[in-house]
Amino acid sequence: MAGDGSDQRALQYEQTLMYGRYTQDLGVYAKEEAARLRESGQRRSVADRSRTLDLLEYEKGRCAKCRICTVRCQKFLISRVGEDWIFLILLGLLMALVSWVVDFCIAICLQAQKWMYGGLDSNVFLQYLAWVTYPVVLITFSAGFTQILAPQAVGSGIPEMKTILRGVVLKEYLTFKTFVAKVIGLTCALGSGMPLGKEGPFVHIASLCAALLSKFMSLFGGIYENESRNIEMLAAACAVGVGCCFAAPIGGVLFSIEVTSTFFAVRNYWRGFFAATFSAFIFRVLAVWNRDEETITALFKTRFRLDFPFDLQELPAFAVIGIASGFGGALFVYLNRLIVQFIRKQKAINKFLMKKRLLYPALVTLLVSTLTFPPGFGQFMAGKLTQKESLVTLLDNRTWAKQGIAEEFDYIGHSQAWKHPQVNVFVTLVLFIVMKFWMSALATTIPVPCGAFMPVFVIGAAFGRLVGESMAAWFPDGIHTDGTIYPIVPGGYAVVGAAALSGAVTHTVSTAVIVFELTGQISHILPVMIAVILANAVAQSLQPSLYDSIIRIKKLPYLPELGWGHHEKYNIRVEDIMVRDVRYITLNCCYRDLHNVLLTGHLKTLALVETAESMILLGSIERAQLQSLLSQQLGRPRRLEYIRERAAAEKKLMSVVSNPGSEDESQRISQEVRFQISTDESSFSPTRPVPQKPLKPALKRSSVVERPTEIPNSPVDNSGIALKNLFCASPDAEGLEKNNNMESPTSPELRKPSKRVRISVVDDADLEDDMTIREIAEWEEKQLDEQVNFNNCKIDPAPFQLVERTSLHKTHTIFSLLGLDHAYVTSIGRLIGVVSLKELRKAIEGSVTVKGVKVRPPLASFRDSGTSSSENETTELHKLWDRHKSMSLPREHTPSESDEKSQ
Amino acid sequence: MAGDGSDQRALQYEQTLMYGRYTQDLGVYAKEEAARLRESGQRRSVADRSRTLDLLEYEKGRCAKCRICTVRCQKFLISRVGEDWIFLILLGLLMALVSWVVDFCIAICLQAQKWMYGGLDSNVFLQYLAWVTYPVVLITFSAGFTQILAPQAVGSGIPEMKTILRGVVLKEYLTFKTFVAKVIGLTCALGSGMPLGKEGPFVHIASLCAALLSKFMSLFGGIYENESRNIEMLAAACAVGVGCCFAAPIGGVLFSIEVTSTFFAVRNYWRGFFAATFSAFIFRVLAVWNRDEETITALFKTRFRLDFPFDLQELPAFAVIGIASGFGGALFVYLNRLIVQFIRKQKAINKFLMKKRLLYPALVTLLVSTLTFPPGFGQFMAGKLTQKESLVTLLDNRTWAKQGIAEEFDYIGHSQAWKHPQVNVFVTLVLFIVMKFWMSALATTIPVPCGAFMPVFVIGAAFGRLVGESMAAWFPDGIHTDGTIYPIVPGGYAVVGAAALSGAVTHTVSTAVIVFELTGQISHILPVMIAVILANAVAQSLQPSLYDSIIRIKKLPYLPELGWGHHEKYNIRVEDIMVRDVRYITLNCCYRDLHNVLLTGHLKTLALVETAESMILLGSIERAQLQSLLSQQLGRPRRLEYIRERAAAEKKLMSVVSNPGSEDESQRISQEVRFQISTDESSFSPTRPVPQKPLKPALKRSSVVERPTEIPNSPVDNSGIALKNLFCASPDAEGLEKNNNMESPTSPELRKPSKRVRISVVDDADLEDDMTIREIAEWEEKQLDEQVNFNNCKIDPAPFQLVERTSLHKTHTIFSLLGLDHAYVTSIGRLIGVVSLKELRKAIEGSVTVKGVKVRPPLASFRDSGTSSSENETTELHKLWDRHKSMSLPREHTPSESDEKSQ
Repeated sequence: MAGDGSDQRALQYEQTLMYGRYTQDLGVYAKEEAARLRESGQRRSVADRSRTLDLLEYEKGRCAKCRICTVRCQKFLISRVGEDWIFLILLGLLMALVSWVVDFCIAICLQAQKWMYGGLDSNVFLQYLAWVTYPVVLITFSAGFTQILAPQAVGSGIPEMKTILRGVVLKEYLTFKTFVAKVIGLTCALGSGMPLGKEGPFVHIASLCAALLSKFMSLFGGIYENESRNIEMLAAACAVGVGCCFAAPIGGVLFSIEVTSTFFAVRNYWRGFFAATFSAFIFRVLAVWNRDEETITALFKTRFRLDFPFDLQELPAFAVIGIASGFGGALFVYLNRLIVQFIRKQKAINKFLMKKRLLYPALVTLLVSTLTFPPGFGQFMAGKLTQKESLVTLLDNRTWAKQGIAEEFDYIGHSQAWKHPQVNVFVTLVLFIVMKFWMSALATTIPVPCGAFMPVFVIGAAFGRLVGESMAAWFPDGIHTDGTIYPIVPGGYAVVGAAALSGAVTHTVSTAVIVFELTGQISHILPVMIAVILANAVAQSLQPSLYDSIIRIKKLPYLPELGWGHHEKYNIRVEDIMVRDVRYITLNCCYRDLHNVLLTGHLKTLALVETAESMILLGSIERAQLQSLLSQQLGRPRRLEYIRERAAAEKKLMSVVSNPGSEDESQRISQEVRFQISTDESSFSPTRPVPQKPLKPALKRSSVVERPTEIPNSPVDNSGIALKNLFCASPDAEGLEKNNNMESPTSPELRKPSKRVRISVVDDADLEDDMTIREIAEWEEKQLDEQVNFNNCKIDPAPFQLVERTSLHKTHTIFSLLGLDHAYVTSIGRLIGVVSLKELRKAIEGSVTVKGVKVRPPLASFRDSGTSSSENETTELHKLWDRHKSMSLPREHTPSESDEKSQ
Repeated sequence: MAGDGSDQRALQYEQTLMYGRYTQDLGVYAKEEAARLRESGQRRSVADRSRTLDLLEYEKGRCAKCRICTVRCQKFLISRVGEDWIFLILLGLLMALVSWVVDFCIAICLQAQKWMYGGLDSNVFLQYLAWVTYPVVLITFSAGFTQILAPQAVGSGIPEMKTILRGVVLKEYLTFKTFVAKVIGLTCALGSGMPLGKEGPFVHIASLCAALLSKFMSLFGGIYENESRNIEMLAAACAVGVGCCFAAPIGGVLFSIEVTSTFFAVRNYWRGFFAATFSAFIFRVLAVWNRDEETITALFKTRFRLDFPFDLQELPAFAVIGIASGFGGALFVYLNRLIVQFIRKQKAINKFLMKKRLLYPALVTLLVSTLTFPPGFGQFMAGKLTQKESLVTLLDNRTWAKQGIAEEFDYIGHSQAWKHPQVNVFVTLVLFIVMKFWMSALATTIPVPCGAFMPVFVIGAAFGRLVGESMAAWFPDGIHTDGTIYPIVPGGYAVVGAAALSGAVTHTVSTAVIVFELTGQISHILPVMIAVILANAVAQSLQPSLYDSIIRIKKLPYLPELGWGHHEKYNIRVEDIMVRDVRYITLNCCYRDLHNVLLTGHLKTLALVETAESMILLGSIERAQLQSLLSQQLGRPRRLEYIRERAAAEKKLMSVVSNPGSEDESQRISQEVRFQISTDESSFSPTRPVPQKPLKPALKRSSVVERPTEIPNSPVDNSGIALKNLFCASPDAEGLEKNNNMESPTSPELRKPSKRVRISVVDDADLEDDMTIREIAEWEEKQLDEQVNFNNCKIDPAPFQLVERTSLHKTHTIFSLLGLDHAYVTSIGRLIGVVSLKELRKAIEGSVTVKGVKVRPPLASFRDSGTSSSENETTELHKLWDRHKSMSLPREHTPSESDEKSQ
């Protein structure tokens, strides 16, 4: 999964701290928003009135009243546009159209391949070329197009949506570019006939649609910019995505809930159902209008008998399918991850593939399509069937094993594909399952927009069919003993298998509902439920879900689920896992303390306590806020002001002494001093340098210094020395700073001289600024001793607090409920510790010790061997977080780093 | 619903504050629990080892090793019992058995009625007597039995479960008594053939089962006593309840989520699915084993055609069903509430009914069964069919209107019931719908365990059938124009109607899934979804759901849902709704402040701030804790100690002065003083009175004083004066206290003399306590001036905090997520306000003004007219909360009050 790696490079995200955000930020925002709304409302009404007046004036006669009426109607309509249901209907409509168009294009692509393959039946080699070239070209185009336009569009999208719904903002994930890349990339990828699915990408596409629609609608009303509302709409969009993909509104809602949420607001449930139903309805209506169908029915309609769907004695067979699917699902997830990790670890392969990015997709496609070539190996595994055709034949309600296939079948050629003149149908099925299994696991690592649900679904159906055919061969007259003969329906087994395997891979039970909606029959509900639950139980104890696995591979910030039945979770307490050494600032601290704290820690937020003695927690402040405070204090404007003041004072003094030549002299002296220093430091440039063209090592510095553009009112790039120290101490220069910290964490003054030379490389000498560096340092020392004024600082006045004895279970609940990133541990107002996602994750994954005993969930060791160790992960996560901080770092300038990260 | 009122009297509950609890309380609990576990584990292992040794010693030969093995296996099994899945399987099994047995008994009861009715066909009067007496007896028995054994078992149980899952503890709601009352009461009530349902009660029964099973299992392992685990298990139990009632595992889980939760943890989803599937499976397997069914199928299996279930052009008809059902559902809820309120308001009726509690059920039953008497009016409304039979016939896939019914039907007599020789089938259907509508609304107000889901479901099916038959009559050859004739299937309309009406009444969409599982066909998924969503949209804008309506009637603490699409919610902020005048205590306050605060406010928890100037919030303390602090300070043990000390000091002084007669004299003097006062206050009793037999007015006092038995170490009943003042100031004497407050809220001393007379009625003179009342008063004054020592006080160190600018929307989310009761509003650590459920509810229900504009959700006025005003409600709620405080108040002693409350 080289592509996953490379798009990770571009993955720049920001934790918004759903909880922390709302407190001050959002509040301020809401107020501004409300004010804006009121104002714009007034303005609009004034505008309307004036327009109305204009109209009245110019067309006093005829239809003036008519026009006023129209204007009013328009106004009313525009105000109505803000309603949720309009948004949801639009979203549903849009997604149904997208889904239908994508399906239509895919069908055309697949037909074209068949037509080419069929037309060249005179020459096998030409046939092979056509069969192979077509998907290779499509996949390569898809991969290249996605890579160029928006690398974020690669892959399923469900893992990312899960992260976004947790409150993390993934940059560039919900843009129009990504939408275009995902839709076109997906169409090409699926049109190639590779074993890929459209479900996951559709979740992403629907979310993209919702985000874009939100933006578009916000032109009419203000409400669309509310953060919590957007999250709600995204949750609904996920449901729409699944719903319109399978025409399965209920299953869509449930699947999207299971896959993306930890806690679900029942009020969103509504939105999901509404939008998904509308979307599925339109999606199917389009098929009817297009004369594909006579009326609205299920996508893969089955025709099993209703009166006696299955015998009670068949239930063990269904249970076996469930358990086997559980193991199979876990194996699939493991295999998928193994492939990614193998490619990443093999440096040689990796380097080669990184250079020729499109080679990997092309090679994989070549391999897969060669193996499915119908006159070749494909004849033994129904290779000529598309995914849809295979599924339709697998869910067929006739038995293949007992009766002769050829004579009875009226499907033109489709079911024929399963029957080989020399080979038993069982062998065909086994080969199909085995080959498709690794092919799907491999194909889903191609860096194109693709999901794994549908391939897995088909494999599950084939496995179920295999068991069903075996049962039918074993009991030709059915199991039922009382008179009537009810033959076994292998198609029912296929339904059960499909639900069980896809449930195992995704760790969901709602695949059962999807299966009912897809087939239009619910008669096998109990076998399906039993198999799905067993499959889930087995798969969950062995491996994370496919989406969680991808989350781990991509190193997205996540919180693992608490397994069920692990009692230990109730006995671990916050005091066992919290970090006791909290970085804090006090209300009466001076800027020097601020400086030190910022230099030594890398936390995104810092606790604000009353005094170091009382340790009463007052709130938390974002790092950026503190940096902005510091840059204001040490910034150039203040220094210039100081200079001006000093000059004024000097002038006053001068005027007292009445020496007119002194000003020139003092200037000359200061210039002398400067010159002296600039000879001292050779690379000092006396004129303002062009900021974009420094030398390479300098570039890296300057880009770091450029970073705090997010901070309002902080002209950092020409600020003082201590400030620069501070920003250089940002995590990109982590290793360097750590050494310094070890030397003397309490005396930053000692450190400064050693760095000054390096920093002055980018220090642009300002002609108006006539202070020498020594003077600046002195001035800064003085400034640093002043007390901090927190008045203009955004303080989160109610950071989330826990107490020592809060259980891990409860902590997990609260973190996932509120999407927290960290919480302070207090004891009667006193700050005593902090728990972040990191500690929590460690504790849940079992690497925390409680009272000396290492508590590990069962099978954790097996799980660990599959994934990278949690220690590794957390440092990786750190890097990610740090990278977020250097967000404005231009991508092209750091090829070495990106290479390293995209491994 | 007189019964609802009377059981409300017994409804004594306690807010556990899910959030507040976990902080200290639960933490302490968890630690103790963990310690207990460890200890018991050690003890057990020691015991095991010793037992093993014993075994080894006594039976050194033969099978000693065998036995050790057995012991170990046993131990292992017992440890496994703690696993979740064992619990869930047991729960599922138990509930399936209960459901099956209940169904079986109901069937027998109904058969018995039919048999009696059929056997007496010679005489219509006797027939009538039999037809009417049977249900009257059963319902009266059910009502009486429930009333006597456990009044909590009355009604549906879903509203209570919703409240319990929010974190409120309803006393006596999850006991074995209630279980027995509910199961037997329900069986009798449904056996009577009245239009009642079993769904709601089954949710309650399943929760009871889960709670009892938890208790039982806790004999084996310690984990079953964890609060958050219990809540999770209750959520799963609700799913099991619905699941095993309808054999609908998926619908059960979804319905229970929609009906009981605001936020749902996806990890509970699992438990629900697992248990509900198992339960539904066993429930249906029991039917197969009992030879009722050949194999496992749906409860109300339909046989609609699969190839062309409905035409696209029929969709408007389905939409009409949906919209009409929406209005119908709202009307049903309104009617139900109207009946309850009518009976409550009519004082005369109410008084009469309160005296003869069983009269109301008997009268209602008489009325309903008279009207359904088959030879009477019942012949026009298919009166002889039971609920189940009506549903089966309504879902039939043949058309009644077009074809003659008699010739084609092979159902013996059932569908015949719909056809009357003189009357059109449409008239029968209309009459059935109208009559059943008000009958169901009336019947569900009877104080027996009963739900309204099934009756509503049947009415909906009848309405759907009506529309379907009309469509079939209108388009005899179907609507489809292209060649093939697909006649309209009225049964499909019945399915849609059933889902839509039940969805509208309960405000759920999952009725759609229940319908699919009940009928075993999913072919009508789109019409059902469309109708259900439309019905919900209409019903939700008109009325609360039936369960919310009952919650309001019963005055349970609740938080209304935010409607969808109300933008205003995003613009209201906490500062608009918070109470700015917060009661608080400071860290360095003296007992007098404590006393004053307790006297003037009635909040359950009080904020603890650092100082009155800084107002930094340190935590919150429960009222009970403060009362206990105060009672410790002013309690008798301390006074006695003081006396002893004083005596010792005096003795010392005496021994210095060497005057042996002084002790007697001082005693005499004090007795004189006391005598003087006791003549002053005539009712002073010199001997200890028998506490249970005072005069009536005194009784009320004493019962109030008895209240704080919950407070540990507080021998209040013979404590001092100020303390008594305090406890008399409890809300039962609210009006009185309020007057006092108005007089002089800052000088409690002024108040005391006026009350002393009243209080001394129950003040038992203690012979050892030789202080005069004046001395006590002086001593207490001195004690009150001491600083409070908070060391032994349980402080919640992290009460939930909001900031002024938190939006209402977010506040609602947080309150419902965490089950909060109140939250403090802080600004950089400073306490500036408090928001409780009350304020939030007011704000949501639209009675809050933002910037002078009254924000009301649309249709709120309509809604208000139906329910009591929110102002009324909050005071009522206050009463409830207050009543909780006087929990140990013996029920029999306050008949006047309970009468008043049970109206």
